[in-house]
Amino acid sequence: MARLGRRPDGGPDTRETILAAARDLFAVNGFDRTTIRAVATRAEVDPALVHHYFGTKDQLLAAALELPVDPVAVLGDLGDDPERAGAELVRRVLGLWEGDPETRRRLVALMRTGLSHDHAATLLRDLFGRTILLVLQGFVAGDRPELRAALAGTQMGGLVLGRYLVGVPAVADASVDELVAAVGPTVQRYLTGPLDR
Amino acid sequence: MARLGRRPDGGPDTRETILAAARDLFAVNGFDRTTIRAVATRAEVDPALVHHYFGTKDQLLAAALELPVDPVAVLGDLGDDPERAGAELVRRVLGLWEGDPETRRRLVALMRTGLSHDHAATLLRDLFGRTILLVLQGFVAGDRPELRAALAGTQMGGLVLGRYLVGVPAVADASVDELVAAVGPTVQRYLTGPLDR
Repeated sequence: MARLGRRPDGGPDTRETILAAARDLFAVNGFDRTTIRAVATRAEVDPALVHHYFGTKDQLLAAALELPVDPVAVLGDLGDDPERAGAELVRRVLGLWEGDPETRRRLVALMRTGLSHDHAATLLRDLFGRTILLVLQGFVAGDRPELRAALAGTQMGGLVLGRYLVGVPAVADASVDELVAAVGPTVQRYLTGPLDR
Repeated sequence: MARLGRRPDGGPDTRETILAAARDLFAVNGFDRTTIRAVATRAEVDPALVHHYFGTKDQLLAAALELPVDPVAVLGDLGDDPERAGAELVRRVLGLWEGDPETRRRLVALMRTGLSHDHAATLLRDLFGRTILLVLQGFVAGDRPELRAALAGTQMGGLVLGRYLVGVPAVADASVDELVAAVGPTVQRYLTGPLDR
């Protein structure tokens, strides 16, 4: 096919051009209806170049939202005791926010962006659904794995919002150990306990 | 004192002028360091007029953030069974969001505003601390009432964010009864249960 008018492959701004195109399309059309081909067309590059820079569509979404960590690396292996998964999840998530300041800054920006308007919320929902919630489902025992993972997500999301974005004093001042002890059983119950009592 | 240059009391825009002044000062200085007198000075009205329109400083903050409901009216009386308070709280909060569309629109706007940047987060923290968390503390039995109320707040905040702002499918599609059954015990435990197991 003719490639007249397309930018030369690998130009210095190509990566950013692709990311900007991806953010636009993900925000307007959501993840499912956005194709690598459509992103390439909008960025005026070859689809192979999108794959070359970013890999899969999931990886492109993560790059578009600047997810600063790989959820699988952070949450994927929680040790051998399934009854400790809830506490360990809370500890890992808090550890991520408490660690590198640049990571925390990008997580704050990601959540603020994702909560700022409907289009961005679509991005955040897709991102969580395809990364964090999918990882969480790996720790679910029981019926309704998607609801269980999502409920665990609401608690952990609310906790990091309260502690790091809003700064509610009691949860901002508590130690990580206190929060792991208090919130771990909640997450554990959502993952493996009874959902109706 | 001279009142030259002040707007005539009760002019048609006076109420909005006071609200705008209050939003500015609350956002920059936070709740504690903002006085009714300072709001009046900025709005160029008499402090008595601020009290006349808005009552206490708490009521002024609620008006400035357009809190569309009175938390005490929604949450203040949860019935006679303290062991059902968690479930009843979840039901009331979801009922508020599921009811009047205009209320829901304003709640979404309030949360988006409050999470959008640091100054607004200060407002949201003050608002929650002085209204919702204070009401929640009324249902606490056990040590650390502030932490208990705040933890209940993180779960309910995360739930409404997931369901109404982000639209995480599993929690957006669940029925109110299912969410009350699943999340009620979490809130109940934060309010009255052991915090460390």
